[in-house]
Amino acid sequence: MFNIENNGSLGKLAILTIMSGGEDEIALKRQGEKFGYRLYKGKVGSMDSAKIFAAVETAAKKEGLIDQRYREEHALYHSVFEAYSGMCRGQIGLGTVLRSAGLLFCIVRGTKLPGNDADGEWIAVALYGNMGAPIKGYEHEVLGLGINPI
Amino acid sequence: MFNIENNGSLGKLAILTIMSGGEDEIALKRQGEKFGYRLYKGKVGSMDSAKIFAAVETAAKKEGLIDQRYREEHALYHSVFEAYSGMCRGQIGLGTVLRSAGLLFCIVRGTKLPGNDADGEWIAVALYGNMGAPIKGYEHEVLGLGINPI
Amino acid sequence: MFNIENNGSLGKLAILTIMSGGEDEIALKRQGEKFGYRLYKGKVGSMDSAKIFAAVETAAKKEGLIDQRYREEHALYHSVFEAYSGMCRGQIGLGTVLRSAGLLFCIVRGTKLPGNDADGEWIAVALYGNMGAPIKGYEHEVLGLGINPI
Amino acid sequence: MFNIENNGSLGKLAILTIMSGGEDEIALKRQGEKFGYRLYKGKVGSMDSAKIFAAVETAAKKEGLIDQRYREEHALYHSVFEAYSGMCRGQIGLGTVLRSAGLLFCIVRGTKLPGNDADGEWIAVALYGNMGAPIKGYEHEVLGLGINPI
Amino acid sequence: MFNIENNGSLGKLAILTIMSGGEDEIALKRQGEKFGYRLYKGKVGSMDSAKIFAAVETAAKKEGLIDQRYREEHALYHSVFEAYSGMCRGQIGLGTVLRSAGLLFCIVRGTKLPGNDADGEWIAVALYGNMGAPIKGYEHEVLGLGINPI
Amino acid sequence: MFNIENNGSLGKLAILTIMSGGEDEIALKRQGEKFGYRLYKGKVGSMDSAKIFAAVETAAKKEGLIDQRYREEHALYHSVFEAYSGMCRGQIGLGTVLRSAGLLFCIVRGTKLPGNDADGEWIAVALYGNMGAPIKGYEHEVLGLGINPI
Repeated sequence: MFNIENNGSLGKLAILTIMSGGEDEIALKRQGEKFGYRLYKGKVGSMDSAKIFAAVETAAKKEGLIDQRYREEHALYHSVFEAYSGMCRGQIGLGTVLRSAGLLFCIVRGTKLPGNDADGEWIAVALYGNMGAPIKGYEHEVLGLGINPI
Repeated sequence: MFNIENNGSLGKLAILTIMSGGEDEIALKRQGEKFGYRLYKGKVGSMDSAKIFAAVETAAKKEGLIDQRYREEHALYHSVFEAYSGMCRGQIGLGTVLRSAGLLFCIVRGTKLPGNDADGEWIAVALYGNMGAPIKGYEHEVLGLGINPI
Repeated sequence: MFNIENNGSLGKLAILTIMSGGEDEIALKRQGEKFGYRLYKGKVGSMDSAKIFAAVETAAKKEGLIDQRYREEHALYHSVFEAYSGMCRGQIGLGTVLRSAGLLFCIVRGTKLPGNDADGEWIAVALYGNMGAPIKGYEHEVLGLGINPI
Repeated sequence: MFNIENNGSLGKLAILTIMSGGEDEIALKRQGEKFGYRLYKGKVGSMDSAKIFAAVETAAKKEGLIDQRYREEHALYHSVFEAYSGMCRGQIGLGTVLRSAGLLFCIVRGTKLPGNDADGEWIAVALYGNMGAPIKGYEHEVLGLGINPI
Repeated sequence: MFNIENNGSLGKLAILTIMSGGEDEIALKRQGEKFGYRLYKGKVGSMDSAKIFAAVETAAKKEGLIDQRYREEHALYHSVFEAYSGMCRGQIGLGTVLRSAGLLFCIVRGTKLPGNDADGEWIAVALYGNMGAPIKGYEHEVLGLGINPI
Repeated sequence: MFNIENNGSLGKLAILTIMSGGEDEIALKRQGEKFGYRLYKGKVGSMDSAKIFAAVETAAKKEGLIDQRYREEHALYHSVFEAYSGMCRGQIGLGTVLRSAGLLFCIVRGTKLPGNDADGEWIAVALYGNMGAPIKGYEHEVLGLGINPI
């Protein structure tokens, strides 16, 4: 069983949360919150890559995961961009190269390791779902993770 | 609890296995094998990106995850390249841009969804670990996933 | 004179066909068919890169060069993407970077070398034409080739 | 004080002009013209990257910085593309990755070093301004420079 | 039969020459020379990408395809880089991503269309061969073409 | 005359400093220091891109421009990477694509606009010099700028 204190970390928390559901997801969130992690998990699907960026940014602001300063938005933006680059695996683009993505996203803010704030707070963005042709079932799993200091 | 039959998939199996240890890892492997998945998990760390490719390819051959034909090696190679591109998040390179990676890798071969072989076999490669300056502790988590038909 | 048996190959057949016309093209096609190659040559011009992907994919399905499974569409898609990346020579994009392409495309399915099926079937996509400013004559030749197992 | 004869060059002239205003800009232009440099400075802001290319190309033609032949347009286009790639710092895209740019551009045509025409004429394009989220103040400075023989 | 006067062009001449041998190659060269094209075809194989650049540049200088000025070397270099990017199809690198290339290269200097010097001289570089794992037979065809004004 | 209070900014200070010498450079530094900017200007030339990263990082640490925490090194590293990507204009690489760079670098730490600390401190890295073939004089100017919150 995953135990955040023993072998957890910022990125792992984001990835496990994005891959879980129901009781597991609630338990992960609870474990994270005990160590000061703030989490949000949402959903976005599109052939328009800008909508993925917008969905994550809007959620982060609404949930208070970033404050009003540009430096916080910048850290989040770069985490989204890195996660997006990661899931595109080499060349970015969705509709422009005739592919579509149906995704879950997870934003986690906190320390790199639970209970160790020597290196301050960081923000992780994970994107997980399916990418493929805009035809049902013509797709496979993709995953991206971006992490930056905030 | 993760149940491969209810909500599992090829990529998820690779990612959860790479993030688990001990009993959890054994249980995941056992669940996977029931549905015909073949898994291998290994370790590689380097500033030389070619060593990451070599570690995964050598393991795949030794463990019989791919056969002797180039078409199988090609599918594996592209999955490694996609995972590597994903963890590099935009521009590839390790030592050439003064960064290093300490990684676990996981190779999984099988159907995209458990028990559904209508679309044949696929091969997933996951890379997970830390990337950063070649100085202890100067690093954060990275993750990449590549999937191709085989 | 090109003789597929002596010095032909999958990619060469695609490239020579895309560069030929009239009798030459018919002769190439006939030579290819003797060794089980299935070929299709078409035309597409656009500032919208998605249209290039769509033209090749639609033709391949209509001509029966790929079957209904996603794994075949995936192999074709990656061949188109590689050919497209190749003709873009570094950074992908057409209208987004104010350039346009007038192209021929050629899809060939068969063995890497004629009469040698030890490594199964592969699919090649070639793109050849002119790229440049959206002004008549402000363009030069471009070429891309992508090959994947199918 | 900048003295083009002592330590000036094509690229430096473009960069200093783009970063100056008022008297300084006029003085730079005057210094440049003494050595045969032709300069133009303009302004463009957009989330649509094609508009940046169009603004620079239109200005260059209108101001007579390039002639009617495609080879001159090609040199200019590649200088714009390089400057644009430079300011994007890794992955190209504006609106597609939910970011916007408010830019000055400067085109300079002349020798690489003042008074030395042994290597013929070159064309420099500089882009300088702010890039960021499409929200006022959520941006930071970016800069790109592209140079090609003409 | 290919007839340069009827349907030939700079890039096509480079591609057909690289794909031909024996009598065909000699005939192509002869046709090209009648219209002022200067051609050179050579061979290079390596896991070290710099060796490909060096082989083409050395040949071009030795054969007098470029003169002593940097502007000519620059045009050649960018044509090599574009051809190299094209054959790498997305992310550049050979040995760094554990792959090797055995290539023919062809350099052609002349007008874009035979007998039409309104747009001056251009230089084309084609790279054609096989890329793959550094194991015999584990490879498939690749092709790249770069063209610039000179 | 450049007046930091009237029209200065973090990036502009880095760029003007890297392009100045003698009295001008000292005056710029003095103006910057009045508003709390910390600057360092150094020199590095190489075909090995890692040496550029190392030169900037070593200088920043030695001059106290970043503290001991990884989050500060991370901000610096990404600024170097962005500047390096910018000067490479599309595809990263020096010796691997047979080119060399002789560069000045400038690191500036402070607020985005002088006297306005509402958005905290940022770090800018500028790279400016010449890139080209490893032959004297076969080169032209390149410039890159990277900026991140610190």
